[in-house]
Amino acid sequence: MKGLVIAGHGSRSSAFRDVLELHKRRIEKLGLFAEVRIAFVEEGDPPLQKVIEDMKSESIFIVPLFISPGYHVSENIPEIVRKIEDKEIFICDPVGDDIFVSFAIINKIFQLIE
Amino acid sequence: MKGLVIAGHGSRSSAFRDVLELHKRRIEKLGLFAEVRIAFVEEGDPPLQKVIEDMKSESIFIVPLFISPGYHVSENIPEIVRKIEDKEIFICDPVGDDIFVSFAIINKIFQLIE
Repeated sequence: MKGLVIAGHGSRSSAFRDVLELHKRRIEKLGLFAEVRIAFVEEGDPPLQKVIEDMKSESIFIVPLFISPGYHVSENIPEIVRKIEDKEIFICDPVGDDIFVSFAIINKIFQLIE
Repeated sequence: MKGLVIAGHGSRSSAFRDVLELHKRRIEKLGLFAEVRIAFVEEGDPPLQKVIEDMKSESIFIVPLFISPGYHVSENIPEIVRKIEDKEIFICDPVGDDIFVSFAIINKIFQLIE
């Protein structure tokens, strides 16, 4: 069983959570992962450690929904992962630099003008 | 002449700027825009207002490289844009919820396992 966690910084604004939930719903529909969860590493509930502990998957991919690497991606998330002993956990690079984010930038213009 | 500004929050970390520069270089290569610039709305140089003022394009698209809408996207950027009188400026939605960001999440897993 493979699971995915979309991990975000978190924000007082509910808009941040809405974005994570949207990606969760889309990726769930693909049926690639037995579990898709969202988690927050700074502000918001549920926190990352609790999410990982609650998951049933033996293999879990964590994808940080961050623009760039920084404290949370390089230190905080690995520190949380080191506490988990019974699962194989892979921390991916943050999404910000991805080629698909370049497409997202262009797509936001298409959406405005269409 | 159409121009694009990729507008980010900014960070003390140079990694944030690197991400904006990377998207700038990729999109420049497409040749769709006469000008592609990066700008910062909270921390970093150049600030958005200066970038827009310096651009030669009559039409400028601003794409906020933010996960979700908030103060900067909803208030700060529109406020800066209202000060500019001689250009047609379009503020796009922030990239975070885009379908291509869902693909970026999956792509980060592909990159890890390949």
